[in-house]
Amino acid sequence: MNTARLEAFSDGVLAIVITIMVLELKIPHGAELSAIVPLLPVFLSYVLSFVYVGIYWNNHHHLLTFGTRATAREMWANMHLLFWLSLVPFATGWVGESHGSAMPAACYGFVMLMAAIAYKILQIQIISSSGRRDELRAALGRDVKGLISPVIYLAAIGLAFVMPMISYALYALVALMWIVPDRRLERVVGEKRAA
Amino acid sequence: MNTARLEAFSDGVLAIVITIMVLELKIPHGAELSAIVPLLPVFLSYVLSFVYVGIYWNNHHHLLTFGTRATAREMWANMHLLFWLSLVPFATGWVGESHGSAMPAACYGFVMLMAAIAYKILQIQIISSSGRRDELRAALGRDVKGLISPVIYLAAIGLAFVMPMISYALYALVALMWIVPDRRLERVVGEKRAA
Amino acid sequence: MNTARLEAFSDGVLAIVITIMVLELKIPHGAELSAIVPLLPVFLSYVLSFVYVGIYWNNHHHLLTFGTRATAREMWANMHLLFWLSLVPFATGWVGESHGSAMPAACYGFVMLMAAIAYKILQIQIISSSGRRDELRAALGRDVKGLISPVIYLAAIGLAFVMPMISYALYALVALMWIVPDRRLERVVGEKRAA
Amino acid sequence: MNTARLEAFSDGVLAIVITIMVLELKIPHGAELSAIVPLLPVFLSYVLSFVYVGIYWNNHHHLLTFGTRATAREMWANMHLLFWLSLVPFATGWVGESHGSAMPAACYGFVMLMAAIAYKILQIQIISSSGRRDELRAALGRDVKGLISPVIYLAAIGLAFVMPMISYALYALVALMWIVPDRRLERVVGEKRAA
Repeated sequence: MNTARLEAFSDGVLAIVITIMVLELKIPHGAELSAIVPLLPVFLSYVLSFVYVGIYWNNHHHLLTFGTRATAREMWANMHLLFWLSLVPFATGWVGESHGSAMPAACYGFVMLMAAIAYKILQIQIISSSGRRDELRAALGRDVKGLISPVIYLAAIGLAFVMPMISYALYALVALMWIVPDRRLERVVGEKRAA
Repeated sequence: MNTARLEAFSDGVLAIVITIMVLELKIPHGAELSAIVPLLPVFLSYVLSFVYVGIYWNNHHHLLTFGTRATAREMWANMHLLFWLSLVPFATGWVGESHGSAMPAACYGFVMLMAAIAYKILQIQIISSSGRRDELRAALGRDVKGLISPVIYLAAIGLAFVMPMISYALYALVALMWIVPDRRLERVVGEKRAA
Repeated sequence: MNTARLEAFSDGVLAIVITIMVLELKIPHGAELSAIVPLLPVFLSYVLSFVYVGIYWNNHHHLLTFGTRATAREMWANMHLLFWLSLVPFATGWVGESHGSAMPAACYGFVMLMAAIAYKILQIQIISSSGRRDELRAALGRDVKGLISPVIYLAAIGLAFVMPMISYALYALVALMWIVPDRRLERVVGEKRAA
Repeated sequence: MNTARLEAFSDGVLAIVITIMVLELKIPHGAELSAIVPLLPVFLSYVLSFVYVGIYWNNHHHLLTFGTRATAREMWANMHLLFWLSLVPFATGWVGESHGSAMPAACYGFVMLMAAIAYKILQIQIISSSGRRDELRAALGRDVKGLISPVIYLAAIGLAFVMPMISYALYALVALMWIVPDRRLERVVGEKRAA
């Protein structure tokens, strides 16, 4: 019951984050095809961020089914995650505006890195306050994706100063890697329900 | 229980999409009647899109009562639908700004076409993962409206380059056709409840 | 169960409507007191509209406890109400920008008039589809406030062309009249719960 | 059941308030590091306000578990609180734009002061309408934080005209003081559940 409101609030913030990004797709003043060509990078960065927020929402959804007490620590860990995700529209907009430059590409990676760390902290909080600690830990296993992602983000941040396009390719790679939701958790949730 | 959060998130996104569009109705700097006359096409495109989002929300609502497991596939099919609907404010704003031109009229149709395809994909996902497959399939019947709409959108996209007003008339026609919610699903939902 | 999603969607739209209005309070570029003095009429129109949306949310809340089936007609009647309420930020912003002129004052009244009519239509739909028709009708009694408000709005629209301040005084009067929520419905809801 | 919708609406408004603030972080037109340096005060004021809204959401959440009837008075007390919180993005944006000046610093404190008073009023309403008056009153104890905060806000408003940075330090101090959620209420909620 308590987590319900945590979920509702998170859903609200994520829904707004995902929708606010589209405001960066400024309506062109011309009406020819050429008027929307410059919007293409903005559009592509929107697609990438849409997928990222979708992934977070999806995994968050699975994770919260384990956190049943909504303690103060869990709430703040969740707020911390929402904080970094709320910066995604800013990072996305900057990438859309100056995609060929180093700083926006690095900034995007930084926000994603911080969101990944915040998610990890939330995960640890929920595992430690959950009564089903061992089960959840086993379900997450070695959490390879959760460990590899920050490393890729760090690499992408560094490479942004060499060639921004490599960074974007890496961000897209991480997104692809995560687009399959956490099957481990999904399986446990499924078993829990079946039981 | 699981679909509840899917619905809540979708409702959030749709509520924001529908409300964000009104921001395109820029507050006039003058205070005479003539100051709001140029807003008329913006207003009309807002009305049309409001009705469209309303239709999607409505049918989505009926459709989701059948999808009870919120699998990864269903979630991503739903995200895909929300993605195209999130572009409705952009398409609407462009139409409002340059309604007499071909490209905005075609762009509006393209977004609507993609949303229709995304809805169809979601429908197929939910039918295939639902335990009540045959029943649902029977309820949807031949899904005439679902098959005709994309064809009309395609025609409207082509006709936009001949005469944009015909495209808008066609979009309005599809909206009228759908404004009556999917009675087939509604009937089945009703029977389900009665049982 | 069905109305739950209707309520959730309406809450989402109303929450966004009420919050989007604050965006009209443009952040001043100066930092002296004189920089925010011109914001006073914008602020006052925000307060008035905030109260209006609050009233609608409040009464909507009571009304929907009676509509338990969420038929297509109820859904569209509800959408129709949300449509007019979604125009409140526009009307409010215009009033804030040119409060001394006739048209914005009349426009505000027109939006309020249409919202009041839309609410009345929704009320009739819910009464007619509710199984507790007589009880609800009795509870609403002669609905004096619901009948007087449109008349005052009409008067205010007319008087806007004589002296806009009178219109604003009338809008404030209607708000005050409604700020006390529909005790009639509240009483019936209370009895229903007690039973 | 009744408070559920009050909570849902409040969550919606707070989620939008917290996310709308990020729109003040205008996307820089340059792509160098120097382009985002001027955004630092805007970012810091965003962090502070994010924490404040988080605190309110958190405490609101605990408080509402006690208010189970959603009377008209409670609803309006809640609306009143949301009104002042809806002004946080404005105050934050002004601080971000002119942080070295007295007026924005004082304005921020004023909005926080009014929100604190509104919260206190809501608390009193919920205590008085709750059937568990004595228990709740005992749980809140002397409410030292609730009494000290307005005093600090008042001091900060005054000191803004001497040295704005002191005001900001005081706002940060109050946030730190509250970041630990109301353990008193949390304890009682916990016991209530255990019982």
